[in-house]
Amino acid sequence: MAKAMDYENLNENVKKCQYAVRGELYLRASELQKEGKKIIFTNVGNPHALGQKPLTFPRQVVALCQAPFMLDDPNVGLLFPADAIAKAKHYLSLTSGGLGAYSDSRGLPGVRKEVAEFIERRDGYPSDPELIFLTDGASKGVMQILNTIIRGSSDGILVPVPQYPLYSATIALLGGSLVPYYLEETANWGLDIVNLRQSVAQARSQGITVRAMVIINPGNPTGQCLSEANLKEILRFCYQNNVVLLGDEVYQQNIYQDERPFISARKVLMDMGAPINKELQLVSFHTVSKGYWGECGQRGGYFEMTNIPPKAVEEIYKVASIALSPNVPAQIFMGLMVNPPKPGDISYERFIRESKGILESLRRRAQLMTDGFNSCRNVVCNFTEGAMYSFPQIRLPPKAIEAAQKAGKVADVFYCLKLLEATGISTVPGSGFGQKEGVFHLRTTILPAEEDMPAIMDSFKKFNDEFMEQYEDHKGYSRM
Amino acid sequence: MAKAMDYENLNENVKKCQYAVRGELYLRASELQKEGKKIIFTNVGNPHALGQKPLTFPRQVVALCQAPFMLDDPNVGLLFPADAIAKAKHYLSLTSGGLGAYSDSRGLPGVRKEVAEFIERRDGYPSDPELIFLTDGASKGVMQILNTIIRGSSDGILVPVPQYPLYSATIALLGGSLVPYYLEETANWGLDIVNLRQSVAQARSQGITVRAMVIINPGNPTGQCLSEANLKEILRFCYQNNVVLLGDEVYQQNIYQDERPFISARKVLMDMGAPINKELQLVSFHTVSKGYWGECGQRGGYFEMTNIPPKAVEEIYKVASIALSPNVPAQIFMGLMVNPPKPGDISYERFIRESKGILESLRRRAQLMTDGFNSCRNVVCNFTEGAMYSFPQIRLPPKAIEAAQKAGKVADVFYCLKLLEATGISTVPGSGFGQKEGVFHLRTTILPAEEDMPAIMDSFKKFNDEFMEQYEDHKGYSRM
Repeated sequence: MAKAMDYENLNENVKKCQYAVRGELYLRASELQKEGKKIIFTNVGNPHALGQKPLTFPRQVVALCQAPFMLDDPNVGLLFPADAIAKAKHYLSLTSGGLGAYSDSRGLPGVRKEVAEFIERRDGYPSDPELIFLTDGASKGVMQILNTIIRGSSDGILVPVPQYPLYSATIALLGGSLVPYYLEETANWGLDIVNLRQSVAQARSQGITVRAMVIINPGNPTGQCLSEANLKEILRFCYQNNVVLLGDEVYQQNIYQDERPFISARKVLMDMGAPINKELQLVSFHTVSKGYWGECGQRGGYFEMTNIPPKAVEEIYKVASIALSPNVPAQIFMGLMVNPPKPGDISYERFIRESKGILESLRRRAQLMTDGFNSCRNVVCNFTEGAMYSFPQIRLPPKAIEAAQKAGKVADVFYCLKLLEATGISTVPGSGFGQKEGVFHLRTTILPAEEDMPAIMDSFKKFNDEFMEQYEDHKGYSRM
Repeated sequence: MAKAMDYENLNENVKKCQYAVRGELYLRASELQKEGKKIIFTNVGNPHALGQKPLTFPRQVVALCQAPFMLDDPNVGLLFPADAIAKAKHYLSLTSGGLGAYSDSRGLPGVRKEVAEFIERRDGYPSDPELIFLTDGASKGVMQILNTIIRGSSDGILVPVPQYPLYSATIALLGGSLVPYYLEETANWGLDIVNLRQSVAQARSQGITVRAMVIINPGNPTGQCLSEANLKEILRFCYQNNVVLLGDEVYQQNIYQDERPFISARKVLMDMGAPINKELQLVSFHTVSKGYWGECGQRGGYFEMTNIPPKAVEEIYKVASIALSPNVPAQIFMGLMVNPPKPGDISYERFIRESKGILESLRRRAQLMTDGFNSCRNVVCNFTEGAMYSFPQIRLPPKAIEAAQKAGKVADVFYCLKLLEATGISTVPGSGFGQKEGVFHLRTTILPAEEDMPAIMDSFKKFNDEFMEQYEDHKGYSRM
């Protein structure tokens, strides 16, 4: 007889969910690494793993908070600047028992206040700390909100395709229905409202009530930045359709062009005035894992709720309580992120030098990578306007698709595995994010060190050209 | 029309779950604190919030890992002992990018290896790091495993009553069925197998398949330590009934008597030999939040799986991947907890002095509190053999029960609210943990500072005696 935790007896929703970012490619890459092969992990936006140095000032502050007895040591000034010491004392005063005590399940009230002040400075509208919850990374916040919304398989969540698989996996895990809306690759991954309406109509015809819509701005894996006009259309659409908008804005600091700066969904909503600004339900997500911080391993994030009624907020608070509190060190990182050194502070120059250095290099790498991909046979790639990824389309010849079928693999998985074996570059196949039928992509981060980038792109080009040489029909395979 | 995130439209399972540890009493205590009243928060096992100092050595190591640039500073030796520096280098070498990089979703392989070695030393049987997952606190691990097991309302989970509400809340959230088994207060909260069989039979008659059984050892809120004989019975029972055993062993370092030392479910299982040691499915949980560490705010924990087949382990790994990785600093704390300073290390003496100091004081406090409660009118209390709680029975007079009914409160909530208003002592009513019909308790931690304990118990006694005076029928209310 099968036992309670044998595979056949497990929760079907658990079995159904897929998470490609750490899927087959990642597992194979880990194996190859164990065998001694040098692997370039570009499968996940994990900057420090690829050599990005942490910002000095926030690390100094959190180190002091972890070892507060240093504050009483006469030698502390030899290792720490005075403003880091002052900040550490400030954050310790916001806790009730230092980093070792559970905080309120929503996070430290003092840090939530700093987040609200940041949002107000950013958007020009006040924000209420009581509607801000700190979380162990943005993913945990997204999962918590989706858990509150999804009641069963007839509840639909609009998700962009291609999408970040956190959404598809979580919706599957919670037993809801993913309602895809397609981003338009030829329009630089723009969002078309007509297409959105069609998606909703189709879902309705299948008995699905669309209850929420996810936007990822800047886009993951697609890298586009949404325009103000586009955001307005989206907000109006959500309002008309009684849909809560989930704004994944974790890449808001990662912008690599000047034409379309980041603008938050909340600011656009507030700009639109009554009645929509008092009615539309919005939850916005942010993190310390991205931007020029890249503090992924700390697991810090927040969500801010707009127009969510107090009784619903209470329910979300109650569920947050079950796991007691988000980790406290990352709450301090969040405070520091929304309240960084100011001009005149001892650490200001250094902080600016470090953060600008990272962002400017990311901008150059975004360009290097786009250009590199576009120089390859059968590869076309939109420019990475924001976020941390390049998402080239790989036009696979029919013979390659056939060979993949023979090997029992999806065609882009086949391509990415060959790429991995040949070059050590660990990417994620486009099928992990969703893509139109018969079209293939891969996702790579733009995070490898800038000095390594030319060699990586050369290595990719060499592999790709040989692959195309091998599988292309020389009698005249024409581009799609 | 109600909107998607209005209360009436939320997931019913979210609304159904209860979490008393941060429920009505906690919320009222927080309000009173805001109004300036001095509150003694004994509602949650949060030692640092009540003044327990963190252990110095682990904090030094994690501070160095947070600010690794200090390792290159010639002055580092003025603030940190050489063994802390060496340990920090060791743990940094186990990461791929320091504390700012996501780890493997199961946690750092090197730390999981150290956990496995700890388990082997503790139990005398080898443990496999591949079957150990690090988590953001033990609660998150419990939630993850229950999510893997529970498929719907006909899946039952055996939970002790009184129980820690993590279990009832999570089972409600996941839409499963809680199958209670009652602990016997008069037998020092012992577990009776006959009673367990009755619970299972009753659940079956209602169409519920019992799939897992939770034990909390040492007990929360009840403080008992399970004997080896009792654990054997439980394991045999689980084996006969095809039930996976979930062993919540987070209080394994918190033992306040010598007759019944902690013994892990896994050790007893292995001692029992074939076939049960190869068959019975067991998941054991541990944390850095309890013991003499009390590092609650760091959110670190692990679970270890025994006899769970690889295909099921893979599914659990996949679900863990969705939120990318547990926080890395707490993984280091876990490594340090299972691998503390050794005799001969520079920091050994200090570490032992600090940890013994905490444990011995907890032991004295456990006794002080039990004795204090037992000296009060209409209060009887079992001795806290382990864990961090005292769980006295409060024999409420009929008039008090009537007054509570009039006030629209459960009787023990009524009592605990009055206690809070009168003394500032914030406890959790027994109804939040489950108790037999008509019997009332409260839970308090034994964590207030030792020097404050006599005053707290006096204040409790004064309140209780006045309460009993007010509500007791002087014509001869007899004890139940």
